[in-house]
Amino acid sequence: MTKPVRTLAAGSVGTVETQYLDLPEPVRLDCGRELHPVRVAYETYGVLSPRRDNVILVCHALSGDAHAAGFAKAPPEESTRDGFGAEDRDGVAGRGLGWWDGMIGPGKAFDTDRFFVVSTNLLGGCRGTTGPSSVDPATGRPYGSDFPVITVADMVRTERAFLDALGIERLAAVAGGSLGGMQALEWAILFPDQVDAVIAIASTHALHPQGVAWNAIARDAIMRDPAWQGGHYHGTGRAPDAGMGLARMVGHITYLSAPALNEKFGRRLQFADDIRHTITEPEFEVESYLRHQADSFVKRFDANTYLYTSRALTYFDLARQHGGGSLERALDGVSARTLLIAFSSDWLYPPAASGDLEKALRALGRPVEFHEIEAPYGHDCFLLEEARQTPIIRRFLGEHGPAVGGAG
Amino acid sequence: MTKPVRTLAAGSVGTVETQYLDLPEPVRLDCGRELHPVRVAYETYGVLSPRRDNVILVCHALSGDAHAAGFAKAPPEESTRDGFGAEDRDGVAGRGLGWWDGMIGPGKAFDTDRFFVVSTNLLGGCRGTTGPSSVDPATGRPYGSDFPVITVADMVRTERAFLDALGIERLAAVAGGSLGGMQALEWAILFPDQVDAVIAIASTHALHPQGVAWNAIARDAIMRDPAWQGGHYHGTGRAPDAGMGLARMVGHITYLSAPALNEKFGRRLQFADDIRHTITEPEFEVESYLRHQADSFVKRFDANTYLYTSRALTYFDLARQHGGGSLERALDGVSARTLLIAFSSDWLYPPAASGDLEKALRALGRPVEFHEIEAPYGHDCFLLEEARQTPIIRRFLGEHGPAVGGAG
Repeated sequence: MTKPVRTLAAGSVGTVETQYLDLPEPVRLDCGRELHPVRVAYETYGVLSPRRDNVILVCHALSGDAHAAGFAKAPPEESTRDGFGAEDRDGVAGRGLGWWDGMIGPGKAFDTDRFFVVSTNLLGGCRGTTGPSSVDPATGRPYGSDFPVITVADMVRTERAFLDALGIERLAAVAGGSLGGMQALEWAILFPDQVDAVIAIASTHALHPQGVAWNAIARDAIMRDPAWQGGHYHGTGRAPDAGMGLARMVGHITYLSAPALNEKFGRRLQFADDIRHTITEPEFEVESYLRHQADSFVKRFDANTYLYTSRALTYFDLARQHGGGSLERALDGVSARTLLIAFSSDWLYPPAASGDLEKALRALGRPVEFHEIEAPYGHDCFLLEEARQTPIIRRFLGEHGPAVGGAG
Repeated sequence: MTKPVRTLAAGSVGTVETQYLDLPEPVRLDCGRELHPVRVAYETYGVLSPRRDNVILVCHALSGDAHAAGFAKAPPEESTRDGFGAEDRDGVAGRGLGWWDGMIGPGKAFDTDRFFVVSTNLLGGCRGTTGPSSVDPATGRPYGSDFPVITVADMVRTERAFLDALGIERLAAVAGGSLGGMQALEWAILFPDQVDAVIAIASTHALHPQGVAWNAIARDAIMRDPAWQGGHYHGTGRAPDAGMGLARMVGHITYLSAPALNEKFGRRLQFADDIRHTITEPEFEVESYLRHQADSFVKRFDANTYLYTSRALTYFDLARQHGGGSLERALDGVSARTLLIAFSSDWLYPPAASGDLEKALRALGRPVEFHEIEAPYGHDCFLLEEARQTPIIRRFLGEHGPAVGGAG
């Protein structure tokens, strides 16, 4: 009997290792503080062209990390909190496939035969980049809630400094979904001369009030957990797992559509014969699913990172930040070509917001295209609907940019 | 200077006092247990006709109580938990107006010039009817989580026993919104010969999976609060206020529509000048609103009642309970006329479910009408859109039933 061997999937970037880079300079933040030192966890896929003109920066969403494609060689160097470790090695973000593996690789949407794809863990993260679980040099202990409150613009400035350190000046494209798409849009405004193309998927120029509310509930769930301890739980042997599990449950339901939940679970009971008259145990399959999602998430994620990242994405508001309330004015300096993709059933990041962006960019005479994909899985579509996004992205990236084979 | 005097609103039933009745017999429950003693808190409005043929039973939703109309004379006799008390006397369910005051009174939808309207606090409640905060005769202490897990059918059987004790055999109508509508539909199936008309508003024959999920999250928020103490928090000086606050926040967002949140709050900041870079404090008005709703709710409601009532409404499934999976078979015994009202923007109890009920009843040849009202406020419409429900309900009740003036 031969043991099955895990082989590379067709189009895979293969086995990759997360790397780390310490920024030479402090990062200046919107809140007025400076952060130093700042370490950035990153992965790269493909080959940098001699002219360094084939770089695509990929930005992740709330619970992602630098491991966007291929198989991870090893788990991240830094553990996110006490007790976090080995049990996550086979998890989504550990040895498993990268979170956007279906989109990044040879012949894929972000074609590594052509582009040098760079993926970083965002500022405030818990997967190798400096965040609330990192050691505060002023105290020698983890920052916890002493970590400065960051914005999407701060994340982008960190990415800019990181690419500088790598010797990369221009981006052929910056791409991401959800919070990743916010970063992509922010790039186009903060560094208009250094971005050729923006790809913002299932994203928005400003989260709508219901989304702000869901995020507030998720954060309150963490902060109301006594184990949060005002944000200074590191090193205490306790962490707000109960609260962060709740936050994750809220997230999961907002990432899916009601019809997708119908299709996936219906009202099926755990024990098909009948209800068992219990308050504490799951009765419906969807209840069991939620608890499972909560339990696995708390093993791989830091609660403070959740708080900071969630806060940043609710703050994000291009019109307020850059346009005195006007989205068109905010986008006036953008020179990149913009590709917007949204999904019909995404009620957390509804297509209408991408429509607003398209309208404003079109009014400014900027090149923009917007594709609304009819798909039933809600916000999660940006991670699931790879087959339908791929031709759109490949064509968009093929229109301009470096010639095929330019990576050699 | 004269002090403003609170006078009766036109069409008001006036000042009312919640009354209490102890059922003579134990209530047999779906879970197999019997509950005894059972006290029922209730209010009545209007005059019982000599033939006792003008009774409308009004059933409340998750957070309601017996005080459906008029001004309360005094707060409920039983406090819901330690520390609960005076501060609630001016709250929604205390001295204030009843929760459906806009619908019940002289000349209103449920016209007290004509009908004798009876409203009870449901079984498992915390506003006077026996529930988890009541004393368990077996121990002399509050039941807490030893209270039996109840169903909507158990609530209806309790209402039936209560009306028996009052000497009322038949109902001219049974009416309610949301969980109240579930009770109304259950009445029509359990006691088909004793109900002339059913009015189910913003309700369903079975909550959809997303609704099941929201309820599971809300319950988990309570049970994950260490102050819940396995359900035995009464008398400990601690209560799961943090968790129940979260449950209420989730509830509030699901009761409103996304457009209603846009209109009500937009992305307005608490301090209009700019963000303050804070994780712990509310920044957006909608965040502040949620915390306020949470704080005021925990003062007037018992967490275990929330758990039990939420569980009952997720169990409710007419097809599973009564039809071997078929809604039509479940409704086969119904003889009441049925009025269904739903609201276009209600995504927690979507109109489609009322459509299912209409279709099944129509296929069975039963008299049914279904009105979908275009209104933007989500599930809360059943409490808000009084003006548009009133003519529909008055006409429906006017077609049959006792003659005007029959109450004399």
